[in-house]
Amino acid sequence: MNEKDVGSVQAIKWENAELFLLDQRLLPRTESYLHIDSVDSASRAISSMVVRGAPAIGVTAAYAIVLAARARHREDPGNWKRLVEADLRLLGDSRPTAVNLRWAIERMRRRIASTDGDPVGTLAAEAEAIHSEDINANLKMGGLGAAFLDPGCRVLTHCNAGALATGGYGTALGVVRSGYRQGRVAEVYADETRPWLQGARLTAWELQKDGIPVTLIPDSAAAHLMSRHRFDWIIVGSDRIAANGDVANKIGTYSLAVNARYHGVKFMVVAPTSTIDMQTLRGDDIPIENRNPDEVTKIAEQSIAPDGVTAENPVFDVTPAELVDVIVTEKGVVERPDSGSIRSLMA
Amino acid sequence: MNEKDVGSVQAIKWENAELFLLDQRLLPRTESYLHIDSVDSASRAISSMVVRGAPAIGVTAAYAIVLAARARHREDPGNWKRLVEADLRLLGDSRPTAVNLRWAIERMRRRIASTDGDPVGTLAAEAEAIHSEDINANLKMGGLGAAFLDPGCRVLTHCNAGALATGGYGTALGVVRSGYRQGRVAEVYADETRPWLQGARLTAWELQKDGIPVTLIPDSAAAHLMSRHRFDWIIVGSDRIAANGDVANKIGTYSLAVNARYHGVKFMVVAPTSTIDMQTLRGDDIPIENRNPDEVTKIAEQSIAPDGVTAENPVFDVTPAELVDVIVTEKGVVERPDSGSIRSLMA
Repeated sequence: MNEKDVGSVQAIKWENAELFLLDQRLLPRTESYLHIDSVDSASRAISSMVVRGAPAIGVTAAYAIVLAARARHREDPGNWKRLVEADLRLLGDSRPTAVNLRWAIERMRRRIASTDGDPVGTLAAEAEAIHSEDINANLKMGGLGAAFLDPGCRVLTHCNAGALATGGYGTALGVVRSGYRQGRVAEVYADETRPWLQGARLTAWELQKDGIPVTLIPDSAAAHLMSRHRFDWIIVGSDRIAANGDVANKIGTYSLAVNARYHGVKFMVVAPTSTIDMQTLRGDDIPIENRNPDEVTKIAEQSIAPDGVTAENPVFDVTPAELVDVIVTEKGVVERPDSGSIRSLMA
Repeated sequence: MNEKDVGSVQAIKWENAELFLLDQRLLPRTESYLHIDSVDSASRAISSMVVRGAPAIGVTAAYAIVLAARARHREDPGNWKRLVEADLRLLGDSRPTAVNLRWAIERMRRRIASTDGDPVGTLAAEAEAIHSEDINANLKMGGLGAAFLDPGCRVLTHCNAGALATGGYGTALGVVRSGYRQGRVAEVYADETRPWLQGARLTAWELQKDGIPVTLIPDSAAAHLMSRHRFDWIIVGSDRIAANGDVANKIGTYSLAVNARYHGVKFMVVAPTSTIDMQTLRGDDIPIENRNPDEVTKIAEQSIAPDGVTAENPVFDVTPAELVDVIVTEKGVVERPDSGSIRSLMA
């Protein structure tokens, strides 16, 4: 894979059987990779958002399982498959909403079951396959999604569904990258995405690095700019898509979708099929993570609210399928998604 | 006026013919009053948001005109009425969207025209009348608005339309205060209101001071919480209401109104009739202030976005009358506002 083809940003590096994660908590000020040397530190990296974005979490978990298997096999070569189960559970509990995490763990678990002897080579190959398949899925989705865009489109995106959130290239930002190369995307607006500011800190940085014109706006300005006809499409990623096409994604996505429908702006969700959870029938059944209220009351360690104030910090929301114009996956696209069309896609 | 009756917060003080403004840029960390000793410093205080909120800006401008008249009369007692016109223009240009500023200036201009001799006493009395009429209007609106609320309501508010935004007591928060005393308001949710964080810094602080239960949320979480039936009413203030009932208010209000309608949540606007601009026929004609993009790319002086990124910072938006359930003014309430009902109210 030519690095240029997938953009200049790499969130996850696997080099000489060692895992390195770009510390996204420090972006855009500091570009620094953390060496992740155990499943414990991988789990902490996921829960503390060193790495974030549903597909990137899945890829990270796959590599973390290689580290776990190596340690458990050294600890007890005859019993490592039983011991490593605790590590899989630890990883699985590190964040609740993104289903790609569970998907990657299940895929690695199946590979563990069929492994004999030292598992490192086999499992590393599987993790690398998950990683490169994710990049290839993003490239495929980039083309499929861009085909919906008329030349010169203006796109609003929320949170970061870019190279930083995936194995590389990005889901929503993959469509933006492909569309920009084809002249279909003229400019991109990035919601700042409070409270964690993924749009301000990550999306603006990532697009700026690739020379794609980006304008940062407060989340609450999106509806006003829709009323002034400033966007043709809203394009977002997803952390979990239910079997009926309901879409969990970063808090604020749902508000955009309601406003998009009100203003006649088109709404596209871009996610690999590893994001689709056929076991979850409806969006209401998707667990919504609540994170520390400090993310709301503080910005960059600085308090912005009175001491002792109560704050609430749900970090995902659910957009009902009826508000989604198209879901783009690597297996194809689904317009006006519902249970039947999602079932056909996944068959 | 018993201070307890109007809440414990006072944004504007006029003492011994001197003007003092609570510096709202420093809240909630520091509670400090600036002595405003000239029309220039008043104009800078308004444009830099030492004082903000449409009614509070109007009251501040009225007092600033007393300072201006005093200085001009000392400068040239025979010609001060002509000289002071430059000061009225300076004040009028300090912020474009809130119409209460222009309303207060016009009212003071009429008083100037009818003044003979040293104008300070007469004009100070007029400014004090504007100030106390604003408080009385808020108390009146508090009762009129609260009457719409069933017992135990949960209210979402946006920005700060409280004592800090007015002469005292507040418009939207006036209804909250009256409703809370009557048991009609059980709890309040405050949007943090990026980029200036009026909700986090001012509304949470003001309600906390008065012992009214408040929960801070990111702006983008409002729709999600509406889908979980967490609010019965959204109650906001306004910076200008057009003759057809369209409402300009802090950026993000419009998005809430669209979502409120989608979710069946009621939407109330509370503003004195000095906010209604019969010269502006429709919301589209209201000038929308764009402020420095630094307000988006920085928080508390700290950069949160990559260097050199473009940002856009429209600080008001327009909610069409059709999305408003009720406008509450001191002259009465207008349900489902339109040109006819606004005209009747103002007749």
